[in-house]
Amino acid sequence: MKNKKNKTKGFTLWFTGLPCSGKSTVADKVAEKLRKKGMNVERLDGDNVREHLTKDLGFSKEDRDKNIERVTYVAQLLSRNGVAVLATFVSPYIARRNKTREEISKDAHFIEVYAKCSLEECKKRDVKGMYKKAIEGKIPNFTGISDPYEEPLNAEIIINTDKETVEESVEKMMKKLEEFGLI
Amino acid sequence: MKNKKNKTKGFTLWFTGLPCSGKSTVADKVAEKLRKKGMNVERLDGDNVREHLTKDLGFSKEDRDKNIERVTYVAQLLSRNGVAVLATFVSPYIARRNKTREEISKDAHFIEVYAKCSLEECKKRDVKGMYKKAIEGKIPNFTGISDPYEEPLNAEIIINTDKETVEESVEKMMKKLEEFGLI
Repeated sequence: MKNKKNKTKGFTLWFTGLPCSGKSTVADKVAEKLRKKGMNVERLDGDNVREHLTKDLGFSKEDRDKNIERVTYVAQLLSRNGVAVLATFVSPYIARRNKTREEISKDAHFIEVYAKCSLEECKKRDVKGMYKKAIEGKIPNFTGISDPYEEPLNAEIIINTDKETVEESVEKMMKKLEEFGLI
Repeated sequence: MKNKKNKTKGFTLWFTGLPCSGKSTVADKVAEKLRKKGMNVERLDGDNVREHLTKDLGFSKEDRDKNIERVTYVAQLLSRNGVAVLATFVSPYIARRNKTREEISKDAHFIEVYAKCSLEECKKRDVKGMYKKAIEGKIPNFTGISDPYEEPLNAEIIINTDKETVEESVEKMMKKLEEFGLI
């Protein structure tokens, strides 16, 4: 098994979905499983990326696109060097996601993962109380409330995070990665 | 030799020096040699980074520091995943370079490479005519003319690019990397 690590083909699992749809929860578990297989794994999410790379950006369409542009560059560099990248970003715009797909696919595998969860359920979860604030008008440009979310048309993997348990979604993803020959 | 790739410890070679001091020329040749050894190699320089990551930044001290901050994050992610990163940036400020050292050293090797070349020689080379423009006042914040360059105090490698040939500098670097147990 030790050699497995060295044979890893790099890839990016790009999780998109509404706030509170469960992207990070599933991604963290998948990342853990991949690490156990001896892979080099990196998690990219809003928190670590905005801290190091995009502190200057807000949430307008333009800034969101810039944010994803920079993340794309990082994910591309990592995955073309054999790393399994799990990126979790609302990334609400199809055009920008498609550019990301195009760029990363040049020299690695790109898998779009749609964390599909009804807006009602996301609002109910409201982990950080952000939906509440957005509905009260205290946060502008909030996806699902005051900003659009464009659903993926061609996601390689759809996890139904309002119907499946976390374990089921993780299992589904691991099976797909096997099917794609990536693990 | 094929296995060599997989045993590579990641590292960042951080080239600092005045504009036209020869950082990129030497880094490109070293990168080529490392690739031939089967290593995963990435070159980061002002051109590719400003295109993808830092398009929004100028050359004030604040913007230079932000530029290096973002590059540092990328170099850190890559080198902790086994990649040999060769980063070539004027990076004139000691404090910022030391932060870079600190961050990358957390989980990979960091080697500062000082491309030491007299200002006179750099001005004479003036590859893109930038010194001329800076002296004429057409480019503000130009390191060596209207902006300071703080020489490294503890660079692991010094290449005297106004005294050595490119080949000699490359040779010196490869020997050092061997000494450090990195190749």
